[in-house]
Amino acid sequence: MFKEKFQEGIISARDFTRDDIEYILAKARKMMTHEKNSELLRGKILATLFFEPSTRTRLSFESAMHRLGGSVIGFSSGDVSSIKKGESIADTIRTVENYSDGIVMRHPLEGAAKMASRFAKVPIINAGSGSGEHPTQALLDLLTITEEGLKLDGLNIGIMGDLKYGRTVHSLAVLLSNYELNVYFISPKELMLRNRDKEFLRQSQIKFKEATQYRDILSILDVLYITRIQRERFADIEEYERVKNFYVFTEEDLAQTKDEFKIMHPLPRINEISPEIDNSHKAIYFKQAFYGIPMRKALLAELLAD
Amino acid sequence: MFKEKFQEGIISARDFTRDDIEYILAKARKMMTHEKNSELLRGKILATLFFEPSTRTRLSFESAMHRLGGSVIGFSSGDVSSIKKGESIADTIRTVENYSDGIVMRHPLEGAAKMASRFAKVPIINAGSGSGEHPTQALLDLLTITEEGLKLDGLNIGIMGDLKYGRTVHSLAVLLSNYELNVYFISPKELMLRNRDKEFLRQSQIKFKEATQYRDILSILDVLYITRIQRERFADIEEYERVKNFYVFTEEDLAQTKDEFKIMHPLPRINEISPEIDNSHKAIYFKQAFYGIPMRKALLAELLAD
Amino acid sequence: MFKEKFQEGIISARDFTRDDIEYILAKARKMMTHEKNSELLRGKILATLFFEPSTRTRLSFESAMHRLGGSVIGFSSGDVSSIKKGESIADTIRTVENYSDGIVMRHPLEGAAKMASRFAKVPIINAGSGSGEHPTQALLDLLTITEEGLKLDGLNIGIMGDLKYGRTVHSLAVLLSNYELNVYFISPKELMLRNRDKEFLRQSQIKFKEATQYRDILSILDVLYITRIQRERFADIEEYERVKNFYVFTEEDLAQTKDEFKIMHPLPRINEISPEIDNSHKAIYFKQAFYGIPMRKALLAELLAD
Repeated sequence: MFKEKFQEGIISARDFTRDDIEYILAKARKMMTHEKNSELLRGKILATLFFEPSTRTRLSFESAMHRLGGSVIGFSSGDVSSIKKGESIADTIRTVENYSDGIVMRHPLEGAAKMASRFAKVPIINAGSGSGEHPTQALLDLLTITEEGLKLDGLNIGIMGDLKYGRTVHSLAVLLSNYELNVYFISPKELMLRNRDKEFLRQSQIKFKEATQYRDILSILDVLYITRIQRERFADIEEYERVKNFYVFTEEDLAQTKDEFKIMHPLPRINEISPEIDNSHKAIYFKQAFYGIPMRKALLAELLAD
Repeated sequence: MFKEKFQEGIISARDFTRDDIEYILAKARKMMTHEKNSELLRGKILATLFFEPSTRTRLSFESAMHRLGGSVIGFSSGDVSSIKKGESIADTIRTVENYSDGIVMRHPLEGAAKMASRFAKVPIINAGSGSGEHPTQALLDLLTITEEGLKLDGLNIGIMGDLKYGRTVHSLAVLLSNYELNVYFISPKELMLRNRDKEFLRQSQIKFKEATQYRDILSILDVLYITRIQRERFADIEEYERVKNFYVFTEEDLAQTKDEFKIMHPLPRINEISPEIDNSHKAIYFKQAFYGIPMRKALLAELLAD
Repeated sequence: MFKEKFQEGIISARDFTRDDIEYILAKARKMMTHEKNSELLRGKILATLFFEPSTRTRLSFESAMHRLGGSVIGFSSGDVSSIKKGESIADTIRTVENYSDGIVMRHPLEGAAKMASRFAKVPIINAGSGSGEHPTQALLDLLTITEEGLKLDGLNIGIMGDLKYGRTVHSLAVLLSNYELNVYFISPKELMLRNRDKEFLRQSQIKFKEATQYRDILSILDVLYITRIQRERFADIEEYERVKNFYVFTEEDLAQTKDEFKIMHPLPRINEISPEIDNSHKAIYFKQAFYGIPMRKALLAELLAD
């Protein structure tokens, strides 16, 4: 059923019902109990088309594909592809679909993955589309939360950083709206959630508040999800300079939190979290990278297996 | 016999007789009736050395290699290789031949592949050498024409666009010269076929004409093969600006063509063909990408299998 | 024992005793008598993180990994990785270790590999760290010398070129200090060995001399190891221009050498060795590339096999 519903691919967190999320979380958990490697996708080819640079997401998908016995082709920068020669997304996709059984795509434009899926005969996985979405990151974030001992229903979660341009945050908020929980959006005024995102959340009846400081609410949070202020999203470099050091989470902050509190970050981080807390059991941002593999194995298995 | 003749690799379309072409076309057709994947090249390593960016050709070769069970190493831009440190082609080749069983190479200089083959102990496949040649593209073009219901002998084919710098066009014209057909070369005056290319064609006794307009002859054509005006080949950007919009093939043009007419393009396209005709059965440019896989599987199997 | 000692990886030539060297040379020799391909590392993933460009070293490791049945993920330039977004080495490593069973890393900073190994749970292989070290190159150099008919004990070896910034040279000198031999360091005054390197060599009691000319001693040498003057290491381009043509080894020079004399170079070369001697049996620089594969297979097998 998941397979049929998502046969065109994983485009937006908005396509996921609570049942869809629970299904893929369960599948990812099963991947963790299996042998590390399998031959499930032997003979399948995944194309990773990264029009924007990435370490984490690209290597994570490629590792997951290899663990499942499959092969990988692709590029890691728009510079080395035909986009440089002026080719449209539609043309690139209608070409590459002949070379592969599925396409993972990152692109600087919002809506790029959706447009790609309209033209493709193979599944498209959105690995980040401009400031819009990054649904597989949000799925692995939910896997991390639940595997690290917390429940989604009843959760008090703060999401802090660049809520305007942060695609990870947008997809995460949308997935969370399927649960009964409280979200605190924390950001400088310039980087608050966009109206259209707030509208979606209001319609979904999720309870959320907005704030510009995290210290007041720190003691009630179960999770604080921090994101990087992304220089590359700012047209105005002065605006970036003004907000880039808005938050630096330190050991002192950590002392204010509950015992079961967890701090998360999709990485890369610049200075939003002080390295002095990296070894705390409350810091689970490197575990997110770990949980990325079973989640991506689950998604690839679901979409590409015969 | 093909294997012996081409043991140094696929360097130039000029090395192909009609028998050679028919042999490799037949082998590519056989690839299409086989299982998608095989283990024929298990344990073999293909090096893809792209000193110039490419999406299509590189990913097509890599996909073909994986479908045959082989592995791939390489680079996708001259920037990340030792060429940047000033290394000669000969030295790069004499190094990489130790790491691989065959080398696919694209290079900005005409004659680069030929020079590489002189130094290499493993087969070299020319994936584009400057404005000179792109023989494997021409071979897949012939596969496309014949698989899409047309015969090469007796064909009326127009080749339009950048005939001066277009390496695809040069290799295609040379391969076609092995058949009894009529070629119409259509281009702005600045981008006509070079004298040395015309001389070769005259010697081969192929019948060809040159024109600067396609509308007059459209109704007699079986195939119109359009190429991109390549900005990167122009030393003079003003010359590029003057000719870049010379041709835009539209629905109106398509209406003037025969029933069995086909329009082809090696891609990427910029605006030479209006997207409004993409879904016509006469538009087979995305099928060319499809036929690239069996043709490259055939070539790799021929050159690399024990 | 080697496996236990080097479980954190191959970081510095200084970690190697004579026994360690002999052990891995023997293992590399065994790789040369085995079948070219094996399934020893089937299911293992190697991450190649090249923050600096490389053809040779990266492709050599990737080829070795494929020959052992393993898979590869990675990047070939710092531009396409999260380093560009400002991520620390520690964070990159703590992420990528979740995706792979071992990491090969090249980085512009001296000490980068050592720092990486402090954070990593998987073995790190130093594929070049700034002007500091390049230990696997030095190991393959020793394999080349011994396989090409020379003995390390009693050897008269000249090492010529950029001894200040040349990482290959630093690792080679350190490995050689485990043997009873004579080293002649030859360089322009500006590029002599650094004091700290000389101090280490003095402590190891290796016999060495420094010179600015090679012609006087050419007739007593068994090996002359020439390195490129690396433009990218010079802060001052004028200094580079002054020294870049200091040495050009020609046929005339070769005529002055012993019968069993060998000339080596880690490549890429610019003009330090005249191409006219490439075909001499005394020129074994392309064989170094050949011996890189068995040495890297030996190292990967040792570090990554279960």
